[in-house]
Amino acid sequence: MSLKLTILGCHSATPRANAHPTSQYLEINNRHFLIDCGEGTQRQMRHYKIGFTKITHIFISHLHGDHFYGLVGLLSTFGILSREKELHIYGPKGIKEVTLLSLKTSQSHAKYKMVFHELVSKESEVIFEDEKVSVSTIPLRHRVYTNGYLFTEKESSLKLHMENIANYEEIDRADYLNIKAGKDILLPSGEVILNSELTLPPTKPIRYAFCSDTTYKPDIVPQIKNADLLYHEATFLSDREDLAIKTKHSTAKQAAQIAKEANVKQLVLGHYSGRYKEISAFKTEATKVFKNTDVAEAGKVFTVN
Amino acid sequence: MSLKLTILGCHSATPRANAHPTSQYLEINNRHFLIDCGEGTQRQMRHYKIGFTKITHIFISHLHGDHFYGLVGLLSTFGILSREKELHIYGPKGIKEVTLLSLKTSQSHAKYKMVFHELVSKESEVIFEDEKVSVSTIPLRHRVYTNGYLFTEKESSLKLHMENIANYEEIDRADYLNIKAGKDILLPSGEVILNSELTLPPTKPIRYAFCSDTTYKPDIVPQIKNADLLYHEATFLSDREDLAIKTKHSTAKQAAQIAKEANVKQLVLGHYSGRYKEISAFKTEATKVFKNTDVAEAGKVFTVN
Repeated sequence: MSLKLTILGCHSATPRANAHPTSQYLEINNRHFLIDCGEGTQRQMRHYKIGFTKITHIFISHLHGDHFYGLVGLLSTFGILSREKELHIYGPKGIKEVTLLSLKTSQSHAKYKMVFHELVSKESEVIFEDEKVSVSTIPLRHRVYTNGYLFTEKESSLKLHMENIANYEEIDRADYLNIKAGKDILLPSGEVILNSELTLPPTKPIRYAFCSDTTYKPDIVPQIKNADLLYHEATFLSDREDLAIKTKHSTAKQAAQIAKEANVKQLVLGHYSGRYKEISAFKTEATKVFKNTDVAEAGKVFTVN
Repeated sequence: MSLKLTILGCHSATPRANAHPTSQYLEINNRHFLIDCGEGTQRQMRHYKIGFTKITHIFISHLHGDHFYGLVGLLSTFGILSREKELHIYGPKGIKEVTLLSLKTSQSHAKYKMVFHELVSKESEVIFEDEKVSVSTIPLRHRVYTNGYLFTEKESSLKLHMENIANYEEIDRADYLNIKAGKDILLPSGEVILNSELTLPPTKPIRYAFCSDTTYKPDIVPQIKNADLLYHEATFLSDREDLAIKTKHSTAKQAAQIAKEANVKQLVLGHYSGRYKEISAFKTEATKVFKNTDVAEAGKVFTVN
């Protein structure tokens, strides 16, 4: 059970020489996801040596260009690289038509199957689930239909308490499956060893909440309560809260308020407006409200174990 | 009369950390053009401090992704930057539909007028002309419909020979327009001064030929004859001429043969396949056939005066 988040880009739309639009590579419980795909994402992936073939699911928050203009290039490159593994793409309705037309226009031929999952619901829904991870939407409020995503590890099974097990010579490997399944063990001597002595509790599942782009929206708090990691957009500082309200973005302080109310373990800020020269100012503002805050930067890695 | 060509990207499709797909910024006779617009072009423009507002015309060679996937991001950014100046976009039929759908899907609102000029002709045609520059298509042969572009300065007018004019006190500024128009001057004394004494011949117009992507196609030679600068794709070295033929690309040697036959002043190679680690090998191969060859690299500038 572990999480590793690599920031590929975390700036807002206006291009600057050293600013990349939103994209993140998420490894959680051995699953490999891409979140958002602004222009240049595939190049950033190369730069940070992220394997193209590993990614199985792409989650797009909303259809502003700085969150999806890099998608068609990436899908086309998958084709050039002869990908065969199925790829699932989640995003607002409309993403399928424009992506397929772009691929068709550029005569990008792919051997692999693309499965589009177009989202329209304004309520949270589970959109992906397997034995390792589930993914739910976090409905956000922006100028266009937007979802954040909550990534949750599945409960793991009981762990073997090897130190205690070693005390009983009569217990062998054949019993391990039963122990992990929670059963007590009857020794040949007739003694019953309680399962609680032979096991450690399951590791607590890790949860990661991605929230971008959005206005300050405290009603997301119950859903992301106690998350291990929260990425929340902070396009502005409080000096331009007026502009945040007008453009349906958040300030660093507002992001910190969400983190505090949700009692998350760590907050990561991103999506900075180009008007600010020093992104350290975002951290300074947020830490006054929520201490364990960091600022996203391309190439930065956040881990939870 | 001058030309300045800035290479923004010059690699083929497969992304690598330090490779950018095709795009060039061309300043010719005070006109500002963009040629091709692979993914990430707008970021490269920022990197090399190229003014976004100066560009009035964009020429797309063909609709493979590495030559136009950056277009929609650039047009969208022009909108964010409140551009008002009209923009002309030239490219194969199909470019308008996909670009407009992408802009509509991302709700990119532009105040400025976009004028699409969709090309279908297989014969060379003049597609732009004003008092400073004309642009013609160079029909190429690739896996999809492709045009190169020939940029030609207009003949300038006669230049004033100030040194000689200074010998005649009776000639004043009011006569300059007539002199530039080729007229002889009648002095108050009755003496006639021949125009040839008062003028210098016009500067020779500069010509730039952009040829990418294409198989070896010697029938373009007459059109680009004696050009000052030729950019010709060289995706492969001669060791993979078989692959060049199969994928309808050129080798460095073939590009040099075109340059030699056309008697151009300088050849610039680009569009290198990712299989080659050292682009200097392209120069080595080409210079054996055509001496004045250079290799394109992002940020490199070529000038003609």
